[in-house]
Amino acid sequence: MENAFSDRITDVPKSFIREILKVTIDHSIISFAGGLPNRQFFPVKGLQKAANDVFDEAGSEILQYANSEGYLGLRRFIADRYRQQEGLDIPVEDILITTGSQQGLDLLGKTFLNEGDDLIIEEPGYLGAIQAFSLYRPRFHPVPVREGGMDTATLARVLQERHPKLLYTVTNFQNPSGISYTDENRRSVAHLIQGHSCLVIQDDPYGDLRFSGSRRISFKKLLPDNTVLLGSFSKTVAPALRLGWLVAQPHIMEKVIVAKQAADLHTDYFAQRVLHRFLRDNDIDAHIATIVRQYGKQKEAMVGAIREFFPTGVHSTNPDGGMFLWVTLPEGMSSLRLFEAAIAQKVAFVPGTPFYVDRKDTNTLRLNFSCSDEPTIVEGIRRLGDSIKKLL
Amino acid sequence: MENAFSDRITDVPKSFIREILKVTIDHSIISFAGGLPNRQFFPVKGLQKAANDVFDEAGSEILQYANSEGYLGLRRFIADRYRQQEGLDIPVEDILITTGSQQGLDLLGKTFLNEGDDLIIEEPGYLGAIQAFSLYRPRFHPVPVREGGMDTATLARVLQERHPKLLYTVTNFQNPSGISYTDENRRSVAHLIQGHSCLVIQDDPYGDLRFSGSRRISFKKLLPDNTVLLGSFSKTVAPALRLGWLVAQPHIMEKVIVAKQAADLHTDYFAQRVLHRFLRDNDIDAHIATIVRQYGKQKEAMVGAIREFFPTGVHSTNPDGGMFLWVTLPEGMSSLRLFEAAIAQKVAFVPGTPFYVDRKDTNTLRLNFSCSDEPTIVEGIRRLGDSIKKLL
Repeated sequence: MENAFSDRITDVPKSFIREILKVTIDHSIISFAGGLPNRQFFPVKGLQKAANDVFDEAGSEILQYANSEGYLGLRRFIADRYRQQEGLDIPVEDILITTGSQQGLDLLGKTFLNEGDDLIIEEPGYLGAIQAFSLYRPRFHPVPVREGGMDTATLARVLQERHPKLLYTVTNFQNPSGISYTDENRRSVAHLIQGHSCLVIQDDPYGDLRFSGSRRISFKKLLPDNTVLLGSFSKTVAPALRLGWLVAQPHIMEKVIVAKQAADLHTDYFAQRVLHRFLRDNDIDAHIATIVRQYGKQKEAMVGAIREFFPTGVHSTNPDGGMFLWVTLPEGMSSLRLFEAAIAQKVAFVPGTPFYVDRKDTNTLRLNFSCSDEPTIVEGIRRLGDSIKKLL
Repeated sequence: MENAFSDRITDVPKSFIREILKVTIDHSIISFAGGLPNRQFFPVKGLQKAANDVFDEAGSEILQYANSEGYLGLRRFIADRYRQQEGLDIPVEDILITTGSQQGLDLLGKTFLNEGDDLIIEEPGYLGAIQAFSLYRPRFHPVPVREGGMDTATLARVLQERHPKLLYTVTNFQNPSGISYTDENRRSVAHLIQGHSCLVIQDDPYGDLRFSGSRRISFKKLLPDNTVLLGSFSKTVAPALRLGWLVAQPHIMEKVIVAKQAADLHTDYFAQRVLHRFLRDNDIDAHIATIVRQYGKQKEAMVGAIREFFPTGVHSTNPDGGMFLWVTLPEGMSSLRLFEAAIAQKVAFVPGTPFYVDRKDTNTLRLNFSCSDEPTIVEGIRRLGDSIKKLL
């Protein structure tokens, strides 16, 4: 029997990255295509002890239905951390625990977007956000991000012409580009948005993974009444737990909670209690410092190898943190064709295309440096450099 | 600054049950208002051991991002159980692990419903489904359920007039009514649906909690090409883990997976591995039998006390399983007024109103029997009987 699907689901294309990742299952391929944190840093022993301790101490309580907002202890930890690290005073009532920060995107789409509503997205932008918002069928307005942040001339024009409802941004070590917004750029963006009823969604899964430079100002400080924050424990503790959070003012939170209840009632309470216990009993900053040290070395290895092995005319970003860097090939060179050539050389990456809302091909690509050791990175970049040279 | 919310979120009323549950926090009140499984049966030791074992044996693997479909071992367990218990041959590829079965509702709404699409819901019907589907703004067509199942005359009319896309049903020990569909009723419903392109969503969170009678035929057998199944571990193991599942044929699953990825990438993989290990190493049927024995006794106590203490003219269901029974007061008596009178007598329940899509008041109410021991049930029903008599 024929089933008539919704228009929204019929619109969404098959995941490009999923198809690519299938190719890279071959273990002889050096893959910079993934987007995973390095599992060697997952605190297995710490989480195991935390699980045992909460089972011993709280028993059946951690297995019952719980409130939709999330475990108060975990929300307090998040509030304390915003205070210490960013000087932000966030009431715990403004914090919702989400089933990963991906769910935050879906809940915000559900809460704000009618079909055809205007939404600003970075170009290139985070693929998971493009997918989540796509299901609510908005009009996407891509605004370029470059070294230092968002292109303010384009932003000013889109704000003026379209009065968009939402602006989605990953301001620190963005996925896919590794770009961070400077303080100056953030202030310019905030200045342009002021006076518009455009809500800024600042997604910050990588903010803690900083190798160099110093913390930048949050949009929550610049536009306190008009910023929603998303955060995640996936890159600092472990992604499997699917624990993230969303910060919004009460009049927004009231609606988001309705969407959360309809979506899954509440986030896994057992996982929340285990994570909270782990965070309480361990030095999370020391743990993050260990990750950052290694990711920083791997990034340096990648940037160094790019300088050595890529031909002139190829540009790459040099991120201060995160897990990715972004390569721009000479004008007119296809990253899809390069992908084929690179696979033949046993090295993989993600072509830029899926990070744009409207491109069939691009001369850009994303490289992940969190999951390969330094010698592997050097060898992979050498092979990729060879592939580029062959296409020139 | 004013934020313009989506139409869908503005439509949803504040949760009625949430407001009621606030009243019942007072510990001197005997509450039949909740909808929780009894925490005394949560397998704390078994899950603790399972968590330790998977940490010891699989280490960091259980903490990494995982596939959207869910852990293969857990999906195999579910497929095996369908085969053993219902004689259903479900390929593992047709099973998706969801973040509780509530998420299944949201994913199906997202996958199928355009605004204004026609959807059949039971009357009274499961509140969480009404809320989840509401966000996709369908037209609800309530079809009454009575002792023995769905009113087929109304169903036939709605199918003929509206050609609805979906029919949502809880066929075993329904929440809120405790009603089960007889085999005969299921066959009649299936016969009426045959030839229509109406997809049946059979939600079965309580099916394993049977005190009496024997297992009935699944819609998946009667309408194999046009049934989606939802299941849950919340009532048989523990709800905090938020682990449920969805069964759909490949052409539907392909779309549901897109919705799942946008919603939260995948369900907590750590929780999936712990649950799977628990199910592998323990006798789940013996565990369920223990729960069923106690719930059955509590149901008997409630039904007995109703016979003793409720005045004539009050009707109640006598479920063969599950956690709830349904009371119909004499025509014209308001369950909202009874609620106030009952709270004064220190006993609480959920008035019927939220289980209908279009009522301001009703003469019906839901009583939960899973969480109170037998003496408490008898005393609570005595008080409730007194309250009813006072209103007569």
